[in-house]
Parts: sequence; structure tokens; C-alpha cells
Amino acid sequence: MSRPLPPVALTLIGIGTGNPDHLTRQALQAMRAADLILLPHKGEDKAELAALRQSLCDAVLADVPTPPRVAGFDMPVRRSQGDDYLAQVDEWHAAITRCWQATMAQALADGLQPRQAEGPLHVALLVWGDPSLYDSTLRIAARMQPPPVQVHVVAGITAVQALTAAHALAVNEIGQPFTVTTGRQLRDHGWPAGVDTVVVMLDGQCSFTQLPPALAQDVDIWWGAYVGMAQQVLDHGPLAEAGPRILATRAAARAQHGWIMDIYLLRRRSAAAPATAFNV
Amino acid sequence: MSRPLPPVALTLIGIGTGNPDHLTRQALQAMRAADLILLPHKGEDKAELAALRQSLCDAVLADVPTPPRVAGFDMPVRRSQGDDYLAQVDEWHAAITRCWQATMAQALADGLQPRQAEGPLHVALLVWGDPSLYDSTLRIAARMQPPPVQVHVVAGITAVQALTAAHALAVNEIGQPFTVTTGRQLRDHGWPAGVDTVVVMLDGQCSFTQLPPALAQDVDIWWGAYVGMAQQVLDHGPLAEAGPRILATRAAARAQHGWIMDIYLLRRRSAAAPATAFNV
Ligand SMILES: C[S@@+](CC[C@H](N)C(=O)[O-])C[C@H]1O[C@@H](n2cnc3c(N)ncnc32)[C@H](O)[C@@H]1O
Ligand SMILES: C[S@@+](CC[C@H](N)C(=O)[O-])C[C@H]1O[C@@H](n2cnc3c(N)ncnc32)[C@H](O)[C@@H]1O
Repeated sequence: MSRPLPPVALTLIGIGTGNPDHLTRQALQAMRAADLILLPHKGEDKAELAALRQSLCDAVLADVPTPPRVAGFDMPVRRSQGDDYLAQVDEWHAAITRCWQATMAQALADGLQPRQAEGPLHVALLVWGDPSLYDSTLRIAARMQPPPVQVHVVAGITAVQALTAAHALAVNEIGQPFTVTTGRQLRDHGWPAGVDTVVVMLDGQCSFTQLPPALAQDVDIWWGAYVGMAQQVLDHGPLAEAGPRILATRAAARAQHGWIMDIYLLRRRSAAAPATAFNV
Repeated sequence: MSRPLPPVALTLIGIGTGNPDHLTRQALQAMRAADLILLPHKGEDKAELAALRQSLCDAVLADVPTPPRVAGFDMPVRRSQGDDYLAQVDEWHAAITRCWQATMAQALADGLQPRQAEGPLHVALLVWGDPSLYDSTLRIAARMQPPPVQVHVVAGITAVQALTAAHALAVNEIGQPFTVTTGRQLRDHGWPAGVDTVVVMLDGQCSFTQLPPALAQDVDIWWGAYVGMAQQVLDHGPLAEAGPRILATRAAARAQHGWIMDIYLLRRRSAAAPATAFNV
């Protein structure tokens, strides 16, 4: 692996949230046109998701005359001792960058050649949902040395849209703003100021249980786990009633599948939508 | 048109922001499986977009053995005199509902039959971007009498994702929230509290020009018009420098094409991302 890598063109491909039919035509084309597709393997509990990515590749690439090489790599694990989170993230991103580069070098050593003789090596990464949303792939790509000659992003269906589609729900009230945030932010900073609608992601702890009781009485929740996937579970209702149900459903689903990904939208009922010049 | 409509199953299909390759496999399947596709015609300045929807249908349905019927209808115009916005919207939505029902009745009178003999009439509506985001189709569907026996939503790529993909930009900072809002909200209520990232849609007036100067000095902008389309224009940079350029580019593009759709992301530079347990 001492030979330097050829110039690399990276494509980050949003694949949606686990439903193969979330793939856009742009995503399909980008997968088919790549020289190399890197597939992260993320440890036991997520084995199901790695299998899903692999079967996505198998299905999409089956009829490609010269299909890209698909190379898995083991995702480094983030050190979690210490409270130096940002330093941990920094180390971890650096380790992932090295993994990518080692996997590319290995594929080249094994005889992979860029499809275009004089062109860069086209490397694709399949990103869950959309690459712009709570995902580190763009930041990791920015660390590559030498930098990629091109970073191209293919948008994908996010968990937010998968949730609202499953509930046939509008994310905003007419002409009104909404905030997308994490479970930790909701716990640490409470309900975001100035909005009546909050979408919460990355919440391992059902942080909706920690809203002040008076506020909780005034909130509706639309919740979903494994949204878009075969395992999909949904619930919605006034938070006071649906909250306890969701806690139980979530615990049971997590026990059954060994892992869970969930997301929810909270909306204040008393929101008096002020008159607005917009109609959407 | 006095015969009552048969039961109707509605599918709202997100088609992305003008790039036919934004279509997901789910969207393609839903278009092909419909009995009837309703296409809104929205007046002269948007003729280009109506043509785009029509050519999308032509391309997608070309090889379907029994393709759905595609029926255009003229979108009612919202009364804009008076400052009773919500009443205007209400009237307007009611008028659109009547248009849909009249177009369905006409298609049936012209001999359209549900593909499934005993089943409902499967009617599809193509929705720009994603049906959940600043779009009224779900609200209009909710007004149908009798109500549809089923409302199914197919998620689509939003203008937010088209923008961030075009700029290869993450919408959030690591573990941080963001707010999606309208130009009017930004003008009337200023920078949303508690977030360093704001995505602004539905802004006919470059409302970023109205931020207080001290704040504007601290903000970066990523702007795009016709994002995902052939006409796409992008710009980004410190707001103080990029803002005036964008005003000029926007005016020129609008004059050239006769219409414009634009969107932008604003981010405070001084945002000191606090340590967080998340790495995305
Ligand atoms: C690291 S973020 C990645 C988000 C992704 N890039 C997207 O566009 O949706 C992971 C979070 O997304 C949400 N999520 C992703 N897929 C999901 C699914 N199928 N069902 C429910 N939530 C999901 C969960 O809140 C999870 O904690
Ligand atoms: C009525 S909203 C519909 C949004 C749509 N449902 C979505 O998911 O993006 C229209 C606004 O979306 C944004 N928009 C839609 N398509 C766009 C495009 N191709 N380029 C830039 N902005 C776009 C603009 O801010 C426009 O004012």
C-alpha cells in the first residue's frame, strides 16, 4: 500500500431509510457508474443494515456489464471514555478516513482500474437517508489527503420525510417554521423557542418524556421506528396518551430486533397560526 | 357530472425539484400503478413547470401496457385582495378540491374505469419536492367529501436537500439543530432563537438583506435557484459579499426565465458548537 492513490472522485449517495424503493434514479445511476463502492460494516447490532446495503448493491448492480467493485470495511469504533467528545469525534473521523484510503489502496492493489483510463478513481459511498442530515460522511471526505478531485452528493429521502410520508402528515403548519433537532438538545435546552413544530432525531432515550408536564399536555406526537422498512412501527396521538404506549412499543421492538432507529415530530396544539401571506 | 364519484384512493407523489432523476423507484411505481394522474396547470409564468410535469409523465409511462389517464386541470387562482389571508387560503383550497373532483368526474364520464373492478379509483397527484414540506396538497385532500378511502404519500427529494446536495453541504453542524422557515417569517420575526442554521424557502424578496448589519457580518449564505434543474444557479460566501451578488444574479435569472424559485441556507460563523455526545 505504499503506492500513492490516483486522484479520487467521491460520490456520496443518499439511499433513503432502508426501503430499496427510496432510491432515486440519480442514486441508481451513480451506483452503476462507480468504479468502487465502499460499504461500512458497523458491528453486530447493525449487521442487518450492512446486509441491507449489500443486497441493495446486488440488486442494483446485477445487470451492469462491468459492475463496480464492492468493498466492505470495518468501521472504526469511537473511543467513548472521557468527556472530550469533540476530540473523540475528531480521532474517529481521522480513523475512518484512513480506512477508506486503505480500502481503496487494497482494491487497486487487487487490480481495480479506473473505468476511464486517464480519469480519477470514482468511489461511491452509500449514505443512510440523505448525506446532508446528521451524517459525518461529508466531514470525513473533507479530511482526505490529498483531497478528492471532486465530491458529488446525490440527495436521498431522509428519515424526516419517511416519517411524514408514513403518517401522511405535513411537517409545517401553513407558512410556519419548524426545527429539526436531537434528543440530547431537547433534553438539555428544552422546547426550541419560536417554533410550534419540532422533529427529533438521534434520540436513544425517548426525550419527549422530559418535557415539562404543562407543555406535554399541549403536544401531539407522531412517532415512527424503522420507518420505510419492513419492521416499520408507527404511533401518534396526544403526547400524554401516546407517550407511554410509545415507550412500551419501543422497548419491545428494540428487544425483538436487537436495535432500533426512531424519529418523531412534536407539535403544540395551541399553536395559533398567525395570518400569513403563504398558503402552504 | 351528477353521478357520484366511486371511492377514491389518493396517492401524493413527491417528484423532487425538477430533475427527473430525483424520482424514486417508489414514485415511478406509484405513477405507473395509478388509474388517473391529475396535473395542475398554474398560469403562464409556470408553463415551463407544467411542461416539465407532462414530460415526466410521458417518459415514465411510455412503456406501461395500460398507462394511467393523465388529466390536466387549471389551478384556481387565490383571491389576493384583502388581508384575510387565512380565509383566502380556505376558499382557495375549497376551489382546488372542487377542481379535482370535477376532473375525476369528467375522466369517468369519458370512460375511465378503475383498473381493479371492485376497487377504488386510484388517483395520483404529482407534488413538487416532498408532499410534507410547504405544500397544501395534503390539506386539500383532507377536505374531499366523501373523504378518500386512502391517502398514501410517496416521499420526494425536497428543495432543502437539492440545495445541500448541490453545495455538498451538511445542513446541520455536528449534533446541532436547524430551523426551516419562510422569507416572511425571517422578515417579521428576525433570526430564529436558539439555532445557528436557518434554511429559508418561499422568499420572493431576498429577505436576507433585512438582517441587522452586525448579524449579517457574522453569517455565511449558501444560495441556489432552479436547484436540480438545467437552469441551476448557485452562489455562496460571507453574506456581506455574496448577498449583493445574489441580488443581481437573482434579478437577471428571473428576467431571463420569467420566473424563479430559490432557497438558501444561512449559518452564523461564530457558532461555537458545544461539545456533544453525537458525532454527526
Ligand atoms: C445518524 S442519523 C442519520 C440520518 C440520515 N442521514 C437521514 O437523512 O435520515 C440517524 C437518525 O436518523 C433517524 N432514522 C434514520 N433512519 C430511520 C428509520 N428508518 N426510521 C426511523 N428513524 C430513522 C433516527 O432518528 C436515527 O437516530
Ligand atoms: C411551495 S414550496 C414547495 C416546496 C416543496 N414541496 C419541496 O419539498 O421542496 C416552494 C418553495 O420551495 C423552494 N424550491 C422548490 N423547488 C426549488 C428549486 N428547484 N430550486 C430552488 N428552490 C426551490 C423555493 O423556496 C420555493 O419558494
